[in-house]
Amino acid sequence: MRVIASSAETYAFVDRMRTDGKRIGLIPTMGALHEGHLSLVRLAKKNCDVAIATIFVNPTQFGPNEDFQKYPRTLEQDLDVLRNCGCDLVFTPTNDQMYPAGHSTYVEPPNVASHWEGKIRPGHFRGVTTIVLKLLQIIPAHVGYFGRKDYQQVAVIRGMVRDLNLPIVIEACETVREPDGLAMSSRNRYLSAEDRRRALGLSRALGSAQRLIENGCTSGSQIEQCMRDALLAAPVDSIDYAAIVHPETLEPVESILSPVVGMIAARVGTTRLIDNATFTLG
Amino acid sequence: MRVIASSAETYAFVDRMRTDGKRIGLIPTMGALHEGHLSLVRLAKKNCDVAIATIFVNPTQFGPNEDFQKYPRTLEQDLDVLRNCGCDLVFTPTNDQMYPAGHSTYVEPPNVASHWEGKIRPGHFRGVTTIVLKLLQIIPAHVGYFGRKDYQQVAVIRGMVRDLNLPIVIEACETVREPDGLAMSSRNRYLSAEDRRRALGLSRALGSAQRLIENGCTSGSQIEQCMRDALLAAPVDSIDYAAIVHPETLEPVESILSPVVGMIAARVGTTRLIDNATFTLG
Repeated sequence: MRVIASSAETYAFVDRMRTDGKRIGLIPTMGALHEGHLSLVRLAKKNCDVAIATIFVNPTQFGPNEDFQKYPRTLEQDLDVLRNCGCDLVFTPTNDQMYPAGHSTYVEPPNVASHWEGKIRPGHFRGVTTIVLKLLQIIPAHVGYFGRKDYQQVAVIRGMVRDLNLPIVIEACETVREPDGLAMSSRNRYLSAEDRRRALGLSRALGSAQRLIENGCTSGSQIEQCMRDALLAAPVDSIDYAAIVHPETLEPVESILSPVVGMIAARVGTTRLIDNATFTLG
Repeated sequence: MRVIASSAETYAFVDRMRTDGKRIGLIPTMGALHEGHLSLVRLAKKNCDVAIATIFVNPTQFGPNEDFQKYPRTLEQDLDVLRNCGCDLVFTPTNDQMYPAGHSTYVEPPNVASHWEGKIRPGHFRGVTTIVLKLLQIIPAHVGYFGRKDYQQVAVIRGMVRDLNLPIVIEACETVREPDGLAMSSRNRYLSAEDRRRALGLSRALGSAQRLIENGCTSGSQIEQCMRDALLAAPVDSIDYAAIVHPETLEPVESILSPVVGMIAARVGTTRLIDNATFTLG
């Protein structure tokens, strides 16, 4: 496995691979890798000729009061697990390389960024679309792999890919969960033992919603209330949102006639967690 | 010469060329081609294996009170002259293809867009960066050819290329002029015979400024006054700006110690014209 910090060198490597007719899979990450990320690398290895991961804690997607400084950085472990998954190349740029002095061009994300996370974390998705676009120029991959745990992020990236004609296919992969249901996240390592127990409120709320829908409930607001009840029973410390939304527009759905997505963001202790699930009708 | 309206087909063509090891030159245009455009096509033919032009009157770079509707559209003639220049492919998308319903992702241009044209035409450069980025995804060229007549546009595109890591070299080519000095522009065809005569004020103003600098004048404001005097002598009907600026930042320069650029925008009748020149010291 090669580890390259230079964008010019990485581009040259990928361009050569493309000229050789290789199919390139890209897995952009912020490091602190867990089984969710590794499932993306394995899928890229299975479906492409070359799997390329990037590790970069992107400052522009963090708000001023968010956890950019304390975000876990575990580079050596990350490289070990990527090597074990058969990853071919890891691009590990520095901040100064990605955002040199004078950097001032950004990608304004599509409308789907205006809901939920976009409302609570202003500027977050602008940071995401900008860094993903940049990475896709340095690593012109055929397929980009993203985790469905960040459901809205996938929708935003798909919107950008469509609107800006980016020549890539976006694969959204299933959320990987701990045995007890907690969605894997780099931020789970912030949780104390007690927080960790309370964090189960998110996946339990989604489970309750799924059962309610299977039992024939078609009222979005009733299901939202059920999710809130489950979250407060955990108890989580605060709820940013618990919503039943259209799978593409992410607009709230009141009367459920086709599959919907349940999206949750909540705080447990000082840790902000998100989770989601797609609900099919009973 | 192939003429393709479909972006998917165009991308497939270019991707195949790249895999074949061909060097691709791109000339984005809004049609209504003149000798300035053709000089870019000839340079692309000379320095690349494949020359690809695009013809698309991009609505997002026109303001609500600008000339989008009446902008000259001369497709059949354009294709004839491109064919005669040895152009290999022309991409001619429709509005609906470039901006389908729901399109909402844009490229916020770099800071250099905030001056001059950016101030007078709000949103103009956002339209330019967005369409150029889109075209570069559909046609991943090695070199992009742009006319220096749109000096600030070239600076904005170079800023975007640098900030977003676009894998392309931008070549800015000399302004092509009529024998009497008028910079070639698709908008020149709006000019009545009398306007055409008065339009010479722009190139004459730049000539006067060059002579003043050659004679040792180092005062930006004195040279600006000299350009304004020449414009009002033409007379033009109004001056948007007549400025002496730094060649990269486009900030006004008061004390001239190294090469500067003179930039002019003025109205003659209902036609808005721009011109510029780089001045070396005497």
